[in-house]
Amino acid sequence: MATAGKVIRCKAAVAWEPRKPLSIEDVDVAPAKAHEVRIKVVATSVCHTDWQCLYEAGNASNLRPFPLVLGHEGAGVVESVGAEVTKFAPGDKVIPLFLPCCGKCDRCKSDKTNLCKKNWENMQAGVLADGTSRISCRGQQVYQFLGVSSFSQYTVLPDTSLAKIDAAAPLDRVCLLGCGVSTGYGAAVQTAKVENGSSCAVFGLGAVGLAAIMGCKEVMASRIIAVDINPEKFEKAKEFGATDCVNPRDHTGKTIQQVVVEMTDGGVDYALECVGSPVIMRNALESTREAGGTCVIAGWTETETMSVPVIKILMGRTLKGTYFGGWKSAEDVPKLVEKYMQKKLKLDEFITHSLPLAKINDAFQLLVNGESIRTVISLGEETDKPERTPA
Amino acid sequence: MATAGKVIRCKAAVAWEPRKPLSIEDVDVAPAKAHEVRIKVVATSVCHTDWQCLYEAGNASNLRPFPLVLGHEGAGVVESVGAEVTKFAPGDKVIPLFLPCCGKCDRCKSDKTNLCKKNWENMQAGVLADGTSRISCRGQQVYQFLGVSSFSQYTVLPDTSLAKIDAAAPLDRVCLLGCGVSTGYGAAVQTAKVENGSSCAVFGLGAVGLAAIMGCKEVMASRIIAVDINPEKFEKAKEFGATDCVNPRDHTGKTIQQVVVEMTDGGVDYALECVGSPVIMRNALESTREAGGTCVIAGWTETETMSVPVIKILMGRTLKGTYFGGWKSAEDVPKLVEKYMQKKLKLDEFITHSLPLAKINDAFQLLVNGESIRTVISLGEETDKPERTPA
Repeated sequence: MATAGKVIRCKAAVAWEPRKPLSIEDVDVAPAKAHEVRIKVVATSVCHTDWQCLYEAGNASNLRPFPLVLGHEGAGVVESVGAEVTKFAPGDKVIPLFLPCCGKCDRCKSDKTNLCKKNWENMQAGVLADGTSRISCRGQQVYQFLGVSSFSQYTVLPDTSLAKIDAAAPLDRVCLLGCGVSTGYGAAVQTAKVENGSSCAVFGLGAVGLAAIMGCKEVMASRIIAVDINPEKFEKAKEFGATDCVNPRDHTGKTIQQVVVEMTDGGVDYALECVGSPVIMRNALESTREAGGTCVIAGWTETETMSVPVIKILMGRTLKGTYFGGWKSAEDVPKLVEKYMQKKLKLDEFITHSLPLAKINDAFQLLVNGESIRTVISLGEETDKPERTPA
Repeated sequence: MATAGKVIRCKAAVAWEPRKPLSIEDVDVAPAKAHEVRIKVVATSVCHTDWQCLYEAGNASNLRPFPLVLGHEGAGVVESVGAEVTKFAPGDKVIPLFLPCCGKCDRCKSDKTNLCKKNWENMQAGVLADGTSRISCRGQQVYQFLGVSSFSQYTVLPDTSLAKIDAAAPLDRVCLLGCGVSTGYGAAVQTAKVENGSSCAVFGLGAVGLAAIMGCKEVMASRIIAVDINPEKFEKAKEFGATDCVNPRDHTGKTIQQVVVEMTDGGVDYALECVGSPVIMRNALESTREAGGTCVIAGWTETETMSVPVIKILMGRTLKGTYFGGWKSAEDVPKLVEKYMQKKLKLDEFITHSLPLAKINDAFQLLVNGESIRTVISLGEETDKPERTPA
């Protein structure tokens, strides 16, 4: 390609400082170095963690260096590759991965974990393997959120942080597999290993929670209780497979765990926390039955502690967490894409809004207002093209 | 027997009120009712939970009704059986069980739990199935701790709370299988399912902790780190299989979890909390490695909460609890007795002191002073026979 080896100037949404709206800027994206791949981001969805990193910086989220380009739920096309890259070529459709998968380390070879730590510390710090970012703006380095930065028309990733996917996959759909949907779906089918005929409760009906419900339904859980304080989420939850919907605010004088325990004659087999709130994590744990109940935390908080009544654990409950749904990212994301292509996995149903990059702050607003499940941002050339809402 | 069907007057250590020493009294033990068995308790060991129920009543332990007879780690011989008892006959050697095992309920039939709830609420409240105790003193009902009360020369239990054991078993040894040893050993081999070659840390080197070490060694863990603030426990810990002994107080400026993480280049595969302290539970959890570490709580607290940094769970750690080591009590205790008889399980090594019933308060003192691991109380006729300390 004509751009290979050259700096690409393009649009990106830059977060200059915490708790301030993103600013659409012209950024410079340097060429890929050895073992790196530069991609053209075609679509990205907006995840709660992007918002959290900006608006909860230093609270629920660690304070990361600014300025940075957020976005970690994207999909695109390889523009060029750096030296020693063997698995990717220009034109490949790819999903960038905030969780690496080198395929060579002990963890990648273990069937017990997906937590490959290739380049981990650097990626968390917003830079690539050499300690620098490939994105700059007005001469200043701009950090890459989790090493990804899909809120930019171009970005550069390590070749161990990229999944090559089906050339026929619609990028404005499969981008959702970059984080939220994979996390919730995997929390149910991989981490909790929800069983046929079991009872489940899913706390929080954003994309992660709905995907968890989808997982519970796929393995034929007999009872799927969807919990949210926003009853407008309930119709969608039922569409995904919820058998019951509960609004904690409808049950004054009772905790939500009391409600769930009563509904299920002792508690659910599996509770999935998809909010990221320590209080709700405890509620979820206490909603599981003794003598075998499992609570899986899929919601994200980096800094907070949850309170666990020890007797609940002693009486046979298990508390686990999931990161990216337990999927081995580079290996499993292409399989999840295939599952979607075969219509065995929902993605379209999560998408409530589509917006151009120029309106990305609106996407945050829709998210925190509980109006959207997922907004897909188009990063096409026309960043100011009109808003499109799917039927 | 001449005593069958009659009230037996015998000696028992009665707890008249919280935080007061036990008092040796003449108590009356009523005959067994239907589905009950009256046993002559030959030996009982003293467990920390007995002490906790008395001296931590209303704090770490729920406040139970008083007066009561403590003791739940005993062994004895069936004196007589009530109507409809088919599995026991006078003369059978038995171990009373604070955890029932009816063999018929869903939980007994499940391979996922040992938490049979037969008569549970009553046993927790200190009475048998009909809501009353069989023990009285000066005409006043005396509650049976967890339905057992092995600090009495005779007691009555439901026939679902009793294990028939090898007629050749030495009761003053196998009594230890009634609680602490089974709990710690099972925590390692049943609940944690410690694997060959794995690294372990055991927090607290009482009987439960030493038994956990024994379990870790049996399955050939490669590293067994024993943690206690009392270095006098370390020799015994090594005898049981500890490869390293750590006193947190020797590491000022570092938390014990930091010490364990450094020793193991990232944390242990399995941490076993055998103290019953919420602070140590968190230490134990934080001592496990990310991406697969498991923390099992074997220590007991009924009322307290522990604080869990959510990120530790999200990064691939699992928190579980064990109750009676995961053993199905009536089924598994006879097997554990056999294992001891075949010299495949240590018991003698836990016993540091032997005392007559009359000196039971001394046994508590030895325990809380950290001087004993297990004191075995003889309940023979001569309750005032002189102290005997094994070689």
